[in-house]
Amino acid sequence: MESLIPFFHPRSVALIGVSTKTGLQAFNILEQVQAGGYRGRIYPVNPRGGTILGLPVYRTVSEIPETPDLAVISTPRTAVPDVVRECTAKGIKAIIIITQGFADADEWGKQMQQELLETVRDNGTRIVGPNTIGVVNLYENLNTSFIGFLRQKADTAMICQSGIFLLGAADFTAGIGLGVDIGNAADVSFTESLAYLGQQPQVKVINLHMEGIQDGRRFMEVARRVSRVKPVLCLKTGCSEAGARAASSHSGSLAGEDHVFSAAFKQCGIIRVRDVEEMRYLNKTFLTYSSMPGQRVAVVTISGGAGIMAVDACSACDLEVAQFSEKTRQKLAAVFPGWMEVNNPADIWPAGMARGYLDILELALDTILDDPGVDAVLVISPAYLDPEEDPRLDISPTINRMASRYPEKPLALWIFGGYRPELAARLEKENRVVVYPSPERAMASLAALYRYLHEVKSRTSLSPPVFSGIHGERIEAILETARQEGLKTINETALEILQAAGIPVLPSRVAQSAGDAVKIAGALGYPVVMKIVSPQISHKSDVGGVRVNLTDARAVEKAYSEMLASVSARAPHATIKGVLIQPYRPGGVEVLLGCKRDPSFGPVLVFGLGGIYTELFRDVSFAVAPINREEALDMIRETRSYRLLQGYRGQPPADIDALVECLLRLSQMVTRWPEIMEMDINPLLVGPQGAVAVDARITIG
Amino acid sequence: MESLIPFFHPRSVALIGVSTKTGLQAFNILEQVQAGGYRGRIYPVNPRGGTILGLPVYRTVSEIPETPDLAVISTPRTAVPDVVRECTAKGIKAIIIITQGFADADEWGKQMQQELLETVRDNGTRIVGPNTIGVVNLYENLNTSFIGFLRQKADTAMICQSGIFLLGAADFTAGIGLGVDIGNAADVSFTESLAYLGQQPQVKVINLHMEGIQDGRRFMEVARRVSRVKPVLCLKTGCSEAGARAASSHSGSLAGEDHVFSAAFKQCGIIRVRDVEEMRYLNKTFLTYSSMPGQRVAVVTISGGAGIMAVDACSACDLEVAQFSEKTRQKLAAVFPGWMEVNNPADIWPAGMARGYLDILELALDTILDDPGVDAVLVISPAYLDPEEDPRLDISPTINRMASRYPEKPLALWIFGGYRPELAARLEKENRVVVYPSPERAMASLAALYRYLHEVKSRTSLSPPVFSGIHGERIEAILETARQEGLKTINETALEILQAAGIPVLPSRVAQSAGDAVKIAGALGYPVVMKIVSPQISHKSDVGGVRVNLTDARAVEKAYSEMLASVSARAPHATIKGVLIQPYRPGGVEVLLGCKRDPSFGPVLVFGLGGIYTELFRDVSFAVAPINREEALDMIRETRSYRLLQGYRGQPPADIDALVECLLRLSQMVTRWPEIMEMDINPLLVGPQGAVAVDARITIG
Repeated sequence: MESLIPFFHPRSVALIGVSTKTGLQAFNILEQVQAGGYRGRIYPVNPRGGTILGLPVYRTVSEIPETPDLAVISTPRTAVPDVVRECTAKGIKAIIIITQGFADADEWGKQMQQELLETVRDNGTRIVGPNTIGVVNLYENLNTSFIGFLRQKADTAMICQSGIFLLGAADFTAGIGLGVDIGNAADVSFTESLAYLGQQPQVKVINLHMEGIQDGRRFMEVARRVSRVKPVLCLKTGCSEAGARAASSHSGSLAGEDHVFSAAFKQCGIIRVRDVEEMRYLNKTFLTYSSMPGQRVAVVTISGGAGIMAVDACSACDLEVAQFSEKTRQKLAAVFPGWMEVNNPADIWPAGMARGYLDILELALDTILDDPGVDAVLVISPAYLDPEEDPRLDISPTINRMASRYPEKPLALWIFGGYRPELAARLEKENRVVVYPSPERAMASLAALYRYLHEVKSRTSLSPPVFSGIHGERIEAILETARQEGLKTINETALEILQAAGIPVLPSRVAQSAGDAVKIAGALGYPVVMKIVSPQISHKSDVGGVRVNLTDARAVEKAYSEMLASVSARAPHATIKGVLIQPYRPGGVEVLLGCKRDPSFGPVLVFGLGGIYTELFRDVSFAVAPINREEALDMIRETRSYRLLQGYRGQPPADIDALVECLLRLSQMVTRWPEIMEMDINPLLVGPQGAVAVDARITIG
Repeated sequence: MESLIPFFHPRSVALIGVSTKTGLQAFNILEQVQAGGYRGRIYPVNPRGGTILGLPVYRTVSEIPETPDLAVISTPRTAVPDVVRECTAKGIKAIIIITQGFADADEWGKQMQQELLETVRDNGTRIVGPNTIGVVNLYENLNTSFIGFLRQKADTAMICQSGIFLLGAADFTAGIGLGVDIGNAADVSFTESLAYLGQQPQVKVINLHMEGIQDGRRFMEVARRVSRVKPVLCLKTGCSEAGARAASSHSGSLAGEDHVFSAAFKQCGIIRVRDVEEMRYLNKTFLTYSSMPGQRVAVVTISGGAGIMAVDACSACDLEVAQFSEKTRQKLAAVFPGWMEVNNPADIWPAGMARGYLDILELALDTILDDPGVDAVLVISPAYLDPEEDPRLDISPTINRMASRYPEKPLALWIFGGYRPELAARLEKENRVVVYPSPERAMASLAALYRYLHEVKSRTSLSPPVFSGIHGERIEAILETARQEGLKTINETALEILQAAGIPVLPSRVAQSAGDAVKIAGALGYPVVMKIVSPQISHKSDVGGVRVNLTDARAVEKAYSEMLASVSARAPHATIKGVLIQPYRPGGVEVLLGCKRDPSFGPVLVFGLGGIYTELFRDVSFAVAPINREEALDMIRETRSYRLLQGYRGQPPADIDALVECLLRLSQMVTRWPEIMEMDINPLLVGPQGAVAVDARITIG
């Protein structure tokens, strides 16, 4: 991580390939670095030599009279490999490659990028990019962009894969302190940048713009640590199919499935934002408020109609509408008109009209913020009470006074009626309040603040448990046999693998004849279930390949011949390998447990409703393995099917502990055996006492 | 509707109860009316007489030398009834009551409101309010607000229940032309105001802020007509439980269920917006664009990363990412660097850097807008190319030229990098483009535009069919019997009612003994289903009260005694009225059909997945009855369960026509018999050939 220091704090910078043109549309980096006010030493390099913007130009890197801390390369792409070699020869340890046309472009570009990495491999030189606009450190007036942009300083950091997030920081993150565009991320990665910026004490919020990630698991480890210290927000793009295609050609990113990113972010405490507007207001929120004792919000409004909107928004993001104490009610009732009930939202307009708006606003805020049943307040006030029109209407002294008197409770504002950025800026100047553009935005921001403080920052993260009694040799033997047989999918022996991993399975045996079936059924005990076994048939019930609740030998015999007849009629090309017999266990909830491999995050677990509705309702949740007990419970609670498990419509509650143990054992198994590419346990039957796997399939690779 | 004209176009206005105070915090309506520049005659009325703001003050209404077109009352609430009587005596036909404290307040207020209505009942005088800030007509510089606000004129109209939507119009609806705050809506209603504003030719977009509505069905009729001429947007508030409570005390509104509002709005072509930010940008969109041939969107961007965001947003709102024609590709390839593939999004940055940004922007837009495979274009451009910094960078001439050359294709902009309202205002000045704050906002707005133009504006609305062969006398006889017996719920004879309405039902008879059951089963034909009949048991399967697939007399006999034993053990206090026997029909999809009465909209139909998962997944859709065939199909298609009906996992497709007919017959029935308060057909079994009701319950009132 120390190797990133020269990128952010260079005492000297070589600008290689700097343009001789200056001014409009010249995109001259030197001009921008000077305009930013960077105070280190600058060495422009251009084979033509001469002088640019008052500085002598060096013809080659080797001519520079010292070894610069940082080199910024913006030559044409064909020249880049040689320039990088010159830089390493000179001993430069930090290189930013602005130039496009590498892994973001054609085959040749991909090869050249590979070459660059080989050049720096053994000499400790680090590369940011290619295809980047480099770094920003507004604390030291440094930015390596070739475009001028609004340099609005704030204690936020940005790690992005597109320069727009540095150039647009004034909009997207309410300003910026430190930032890096990792571009194609050939060398310096998200993970490393996050670890570095996580340790910079000035930075209060870290933002990510992510198109894809390579080392998802390592990234999660770092994010888990950093998010406990400061909020980490992520705008993940390339979520749609078309977007993923575009991302792969933009930064060469390989995007995994979007819901896996969501699950991974949740597990490591990253707050996922949907767009730049949300990003902007969450940054403002986290820069301004650092405490919110609970989730009970009060609304002080000059409009009853607006108060209703605020209450709707409050409920929509699972905050609570605060109940005022008797004391609060009495104090407000003393100034409200007699016909008006005192409630939250508190409509202060009639009182304000009669007794002066500012006085009533102050009285209401002081009373409500002091109420121990209130954790945050939203003030809804009109922009036409603009201090520029008349200073006697300036609410900012009142607001600031109240915000400093109650620093532990966020005081948020919605100003409506002629959007006036100057008014908002004036109110926000002292960094005590945020002015939001709608009550919905305000409530969603307060909800994110509350959840960060009380769920992410304060969480104690337990390690995944490690179960003993897993028969590794048995599992490996089955996997080995399958490999030797050239199988890609394990059907018949899948339950055996689960059993070896300590997951209870329903006894089952395959019959090759009706007589065989009767014998097996007798041994397992009636009633039984019968299921067709065929590598070509995955949805058995769709072809008449499942019969349940067979209570005697005659029923088994009859079902056997009927089933074979039905299956061969409806799936004439399927190879029938026999009929599986299992005890019939009515009742319990059928769930699905599974795993798949994600290109970014590796083994990912899935939990959901089992049976034929799995695909229809997509009532599933995901988590990157390995998971701990709390994460397993989260996976279950996230689904609607959780209600089935809790005891739905008169059924007894299911044994959730047993289900959690199955999930944890599955997690341990897929983490230990990477050759398990995919697994489906469907259904796992969860009854009042215990859970048992009924059917499973494993794909190996 | 003519009676509303004096509210919006008064030639003379009496301001009754006008304050003698003026200036800051005086909230003097006269002052505001004068400041707005109203050119009609103004008559201040105040018992103290004298002069205010240069105008003589009349002591009473009767002293006014003419009959004013409009009276605006802002006296204390106790004086209002007398003042209204004076106004009607004077012959005034339009009265706005600003004063609060009527149905929005205590019992006395409610009574006074009732009294006011009685005063005007027989003389043709109309009232807006009470509890309103009145009307706005910026075409004639009229507003009756007691607060100054940003008077930004635009061709939009607003009907609201809270003054904030008139005062905040510059933010919420991008300006305003005509508007009315109906307040408590004691007399002038949403419906009437909508019909009136729908006919005003200047108005291009109509906005509603709705807390609740009385005459929902009449409102829908009007909205259906108006929405075909101009877009109608609605911000419905009081959606949450807490919000509904607040709404009821704010404007005395009785809010029905939120999903019923959504269904009603959809049926009558109203676009529901979620917040004031969405409202603002949809207004801008509809004020600016009036054509969009299809849904294929192209993106012209200076940032690859931003292009990906735009593509994600495009997919998220079901627009298509346009495919460029070969001609377009070739024209762009001629200026793009060789390593860069030409794609949509078109990243024009490298070409713009090399050849001049404005030239490339113009070339790209001209080429892409000319492509017949493109229906709209989003341009992503940086704010730092700000004409104030250098006029040579001003993109607005290019943008305006392109927008006028291709008027049929919306040209939308996202400007990032230092939010500059002046820049956006300059670009938007000619009303040819909208500048959006994010690509998500831009795409969502284009999607709303497309849907309005192609789904709402162009729809042909067929009348609900009227089926013959409905045995009304039979239905009325059963309802009458139930009434005489004092029943609130009809269970046993519910299927008979359905049958009389022409909905196929499964034959069923109730057995009182095991022997009886065997006899009935024999008559119906095996296999059969048996279900317990008890007024106290609604979820029969939860208490062991359902047995299926009974194939012979022995099984029926055994099931009878087992069922009685199980039910009396698990529901010991239930009265058992016998056991219902029906033929067993395996296969088919179990759906739920139902109806309930909504306080605002009357009979509402519901469709969804039947069986035990109904409540768990809430996979249901709603529509206000009566519905036509297309609306019935929409109800079905809206649910996830539609996939089950289409033939899920190897099952044959269900008979959707038969299901539609059941829905339409149900619709006709509940519209004709208002005493049917609630109905549940669950399940209705929809097979490959036909649908049949298996069980039903009707609540009467």
